[in-house]
Amino acid sequence: MAGTTQPLVGVIMGSKSDWETMRAAADVLAEFGVPHESEIVSAHRTPQRMAAYAAEAEGRGLEVIIAGAGGAAHLPGMVASQTVLPVLGVPVQSKALNGMDSLLSIVQMPGGIPVGTLAIGAAGARNAGLLAVRILAGSRPELRKKLHEFHQRQTADVRSQTLD
Amino acid sequence: MAGTTQPLVGVIMGSKSDWETMRAAADVLAEFGVPHESEIVSAHRTPQRMAAYAAEAEGRGLEVIIAGAGGAAHLPGMVASQTVLPVLGVPVQSKALNGMDSLLSIVQMPGGIPVGTLAIGAAGARNAGLLAVRILAGSRPELRKKLHEFHQRQTADVRSQTLD
Amino acid sequence: MAGTTQPLVGVIMGSKSDWETMRAAADVLAEFGVPHESEIVSAHRTPQRMAAYAAEAEGRGLEVIIAGAGGAAHLPGMVASQTVLPVLGVPVQSKALNGMDSLLSIVQMPGGIPVGTLAIGAAGARNAGLLAVRILAGSRPELRKKLHEFHQRQTADVRSQTLD
Amino acid sequence: MAGTTQPLVGVIMGSKSDWETMRAAADVLAEFGVPHESEIVSAHRTPQRMAAYAAEAEGRGLEVIIAGAGGAAHLPGMVASQTVLPVLGVPVQSKALNGMDSLLSIVQMPGGIPVGTLAIGAAGARNAGLLAVRILAGSRPELRKKLHEFHQRQTADVRSQTLD
Amino acid sequence: MAGTTQPLVGVIMGSKSDWETMRAAADVLAEFGVPHESEIVSAHRTPQRMAAYAAEAEGRGLEVIIAGAGGAAHLPGMVASQTVLPVLGVPVQSKALNGMDSLLSIVQMPGGIPVGTLAIGAAGARNAGLLAVRILAGSRPELRKKLHEFHQRQTADVRSQTLD
Amino acid sequence: MAGTTQPLVGVIMGSKSDWETMRAAADVLAEFGVPHESEIVSAHRTPQRMAAYAAEAEGRGLEVIIAGAGGAAHLPGMVASQTVLPVLGVPVQSKALNGMDSLLSIVQMPGGIPVGTLAIGAAGARNAGLLAVRILAGSRPELRKKLHEFHQRQTADVRSQTLD
Amino acid sequence: MAGTTQPLVGVIMGSKSDWETMRAAADVLAEFGVPHESEIVSAHRTPQRMAAYAAEAEGRGLEVIIAGAGGAAHLPGMVASQTVLPVLGVPVQSKALNGMDSLLSIVQMPGGIPVGTLAIGAAGARNAGLLAVRILAGSRPELRKKLHEFHQRQTADVRSQTLD
Amino acid sequence: MAGTTQPLVGVIMGSKSDWETMRAAADVLAEFGVPHESEIVSAHRTPQRMAAYAAEAEGRGLEVIIAGAGGAAHLPGMVASQTVLPVLGVPVQSKALNGMDSLLSIVQMPGGIPVGTLAIGAAGARNAGLLAVRILAGSRPELRKKLHEFHQRQTADVRSQTLD
Repeated sequence: MAGTTQPLVGVIMGSKSDWETMRAAADVLAEFGVPHESEIVSAHRTPQRMAAYAAEAEGRGLEVIIAGAGGAAHLPGMVASQTVLPVLGVPVQSKALNGMDSLLSIVQMPGGIPVGTLAIGAAGARNAGLLAVRILAGSRPELRKKLHEFHQRQTADVRSQTLD
Repeated sequence: MAGTTQPLVGVIMGSKSDWETMRAAADVLAEFGVPHESEIVSAHRTPQRMAAYAAEAEGRGLEVIIAGAGGAAHLPGMVASQTVLPVLGVPVQSKALNGMDSLLSIVQMPGGIPVGTLAIGAAGARNAGLLAVRILAGSRPELRKKLHEFHQRQTADVRSQTLD
Repeated sequence: MAGTTQPLVGVIMGSKSDWETMRAAADVLAEFGVPHESEIVSAHRTPQRMAAYAAEAEGRGLEVIIAGAGGAAHLPGMVASQTVLPVLGVPVQSKALNGMDSLLSIVQMPGGIPVGTLAIGAAGARNAGLLAVRILAGSRPELRKKLHEFHQRQTADVRSQTLD
Repeated sequence: MAGTTQPLVGVIMGSKSDWETMRAAADVLAEFGVPHESEIVSAHRTPQRMAAYAAEAEGRGLEVIIAGAGGAAHLPGMVASQTVLPVLGVPVQSKALNGMDSLLSIVQMPGGIPVGTLAIGAAGARNAGLLAVRILAGSRPELRKKLHEFHQRQTADVRSQTLD
Repeated sequence: MAGTTQPLVGVIMGSKSDWETMRAAADVLAEFGVPHESEIVSAHRTPQRMAAYAAEAEGRGLEVIIAGAGGAAHLPGMVASQTVLPVLGVPVQSKALNGMDSLLSIVQMPGGIPVGTLAIGAAGARNAGLLAVRILAGSRPELRKKLHEFHQRQTADVRSQTLD
Repeated sequence: MAGTTQPLVGVIMGSKSDWETMRAAADVLAEFGVPHESEIVSAHRTPQRMAAYAAEAEGRGLEVIIAGAGGAAHLPGMVASQTVLPVLGVPVQSKALNGMDSLLSIVQMPGGIPVGTLAIGAAGARNAGLLAVRILAGSRPELRKKLHEFHQRQTADVRSQTLD
Repeated sequence: MAGTTQPLVGVIMGSKSDWETMRAAADVLAEFGVPHESEIVSAHRTPQRMAAYAAEAEGRGLEVIIAGAGGAAHLPGMVASQTVLPVLGVPVQSKALNGMDSLLSIVQMPGGIPVGTLAIGAAGARNAGLLAVRILAGSRPELRKKLHEFHQRQTADVRSQTLD
Repeated sequence: MAGTTQPLVGVIMGSKSDWETMRAAADVLAEFGVPHESEIVSAHRTPQRMAAYAAEAEGRGLEVIIAGAGGAAHLPGMVASQTVLPVLGVPVQSKALNGMDSLLSIVQMPGGIPVGTLAIGAAGARNAGLLAVRILAGSRPELRKKLHEFHQRQTADVRSQTLD
């Protein structure tokens, strides 16, 4: 999916170990047929690559960036400061503080540089993918139609469940 | 601004006292010339109105909804569950717990229903406005141009500041 | 128990995985012989069903609603906003934040819409069941008698325990 | 209101300084015309009086007890352990920890002894009063009618508010 | 040890499951040859027994009470309110909140009723035993001598350890 | 009071600004007629003086040490490591974190070195004084008598209070 | 001081409002006669300037960088990722969360990129200045001498203080 | 490495169990060829040894001290108060509170006594080693060269990683 077509969404993360969480974002984009790419871009260990990624994203045709990171999670905010594309942040659950550090490092951005932050962990990654679809659907009626179908299916799924 | 033109962004909040915070979102939309509306819609005290607002938003031509709330802040998540538009949530600073309750109630959404969450308080409201502009700019080149100018101005402003 | 007799208590929860926790509420109602029903009603994925459930509960003869949810736990508060029955909320232990998010999302309701909140997890679910019995017992002397017996048994149980 | 008629709700609190918060519970009971009493009963400084209050409440005709306390807030839980009436707990905002200590001390009760906990501070006290009314309304149709009117008024109030 | 001799220290706890933690207090008292007793006394499930235990402790010759409890941990504070003996509190690690609820419920006592609180879990229980010994040693020179020996041994133990 | 008679209790604190809080400990000792001394002893800025104070306390006839400190509050634990007297710790409310840092730095001592910790702020300081009196009263019947009178007075005070 | 001589320490901060806090770092460097410079460098609003500052610091002769920031405080970590000089981070007290967000965003850096973090607020800024002096003193005997004098003075100051 | 050559860095920790964490500091020093020593020095159980270690460190030729501790982690601060060498603190992850207690006990030092604090756990220990190398490199060009190579390698490592 991330190969031949021009990707619309870039899914990036600070380290390979974040992929276990961030895969949920890529999966939902694939479900909706949204071309995307997934890469390791570390704010701290590859700062120049990060700056280049952010600066070139718009020109390359990306429309949304999803960035996941844990601990002192600087990736989403630093990317947001170097692009005008919408940036969505996913706090990866950290070892000691369960992702509370990741959450605060991502969401508490100063006025001027927005990061739309999702929940800690895989549910947040999945929702980042869904929010990217909602954003893209603004100018793509077929995606909006898929979103309505997705919601109906989701509702039907819950209604069909029984206890015990 | 919110009168004659079709609003693209709906700024809603749970109570009148949230306006002090949420005004920053409306202000930034006005700065960018984005038609918008600001209304009180309470998840808890006007649940039917909220449901109607969410359900009708897409048909009315809104493209983004910004929802601010404090304490057990259910408005952003409940609106997100009843529309497929992108919903941005702003945690309003609460009296006892400084907005930590508002933040967690908004950001910790389950997989399936995304809310892009911003920082606690007015900085978060301002950033919600900016993120809405970034989203709308995906299919509006003139807004994207304004965003680039905004960023350059912001950078220049910081560079012109001196200490003491 | 939840079949032939008119249920007095509705035990609802946001997802099937909450049943492991919420079963403790149903179990205690069964112990006391209180007719009840247990269902999945998701605030976020079945908002219309939730609204209908809340709106119809009083007419169907329910007298208390117990609602369990985790993370951004909106179910108890949203049900409470659409019924005048007493609503009891149970914070289900969440993965990243151990239920602190669930607790704050349930308990920090604004003035006007009360949710009686119990402890995080199964102990809270069990206590929600017991509080429902205490509420129903206000006009049912036989339940009050059973409550006194329950307390005496509980006290006797503790007194009969020995260390090592 | 708390004089000539048999009180149905007892509003108790650990110290006189809690009255500033707890008054909101008494006020709402008065609004609904529910006979009630308000007293200082300290778990720590008048433990015997507290035990007597709890033990005698049912016999005296009380149907609900609302207990407010701050810090290591033991009053609601200790009263709940000595009566089978429904007990509602209000965490009073504490000086150092903003009521987080009060909240956890009240809500985290072990299985067997339920306390229905409301939000920290005056909003919680007001909601404790409203939850007491909801409980009493189970066998008092005129109170249930008043609750429906209250909800309609509350909704109308919000809908009539305008921004700026 | 807790049989034939008059116990000087009472080690009490809210439930049998606390014994795994509180055993460390009893063990250290045994190490120092301090007569003691260990019992289950629940603030919530045996409130009258707790009141009696606290009221009779001084007359029975106890000089220190160590109380351990978890969650909304009311035992130490409620015992302290009904005796003038020194009471030491041990927060037992709770399931959801790791003992932070237990700690705040024990330590945040209002002025007038002191509880000397130790660390969460077994280290705290062990230290409660040691603090009881320090207290008893005030009028028992042989215990003070043992404390000095204990400290020297503890220091020597650390100094003899090597890494890898 | 801290002059001519041999002091039994040493009240120490890390800086002069802590005196506003710690005065409550000295006041309660004065109320009970317990000879005591109050001094500034900083773990961080006068470590040698602290070590000397701790080492000499027993020989000088002190029986209890009360130590108050804020932030990374090392004084109580470091004194406890260098004496076998009972040490009581008072977390002074800090500027940024409201004393949560002070509390955890004092209470979370490792097994082997106990500090009996009281509540954050002046209520905790007052209770440290009262706990010192309870400890001293173990071998001083006249202090125990005063404690019983104090409790009766405290109970009577509460019972004489009225609301409004 | 920051003019004619080659600065050894760079004191940078994300916004002008941080100067109230960070001034304490500059003051202590001035006290010790350490040449330094103080500038506004924002990670989010001037990312390129920040990258240049970090990359050029070593070549310009700086030996230590002190970076202060609040909220999602990315400045210290991002500077540390682009220089091999020692970087010290000062969490500026934030409005909603009292600097807990600033602290976690600075201190929870991943392995590979160290930031030596000081306390929240002005005390932390002052200590950042002192730690910079300690670092510089490694190869400057006259600074080490001054540090010893500073410590002696600090100790003497405390010892000369009296209560009341 | 820690034998024949004069150690430049002292790695100390409060107990043997901290070695699992602190080994990462020693490992990174070994990677860089920096002579160092690793020892158990407990603030609480060997206070005199700690005082001696701190006082003698400078004379013995140590240039940086890395101190790791958990819970009420007093070692880094107490060492910093008795030497003028730079002291780096590593919060070891604690059992109940996940190292939040360790972090606050280390980082929240009062003005006058700086401790450069790293992240909780092994990543923090590794970074303490790296920060020590950065400090030593100020007057050792060969170490600075190694640091540049380390950064390049680290960047290259990240860039060579692929997802799935």
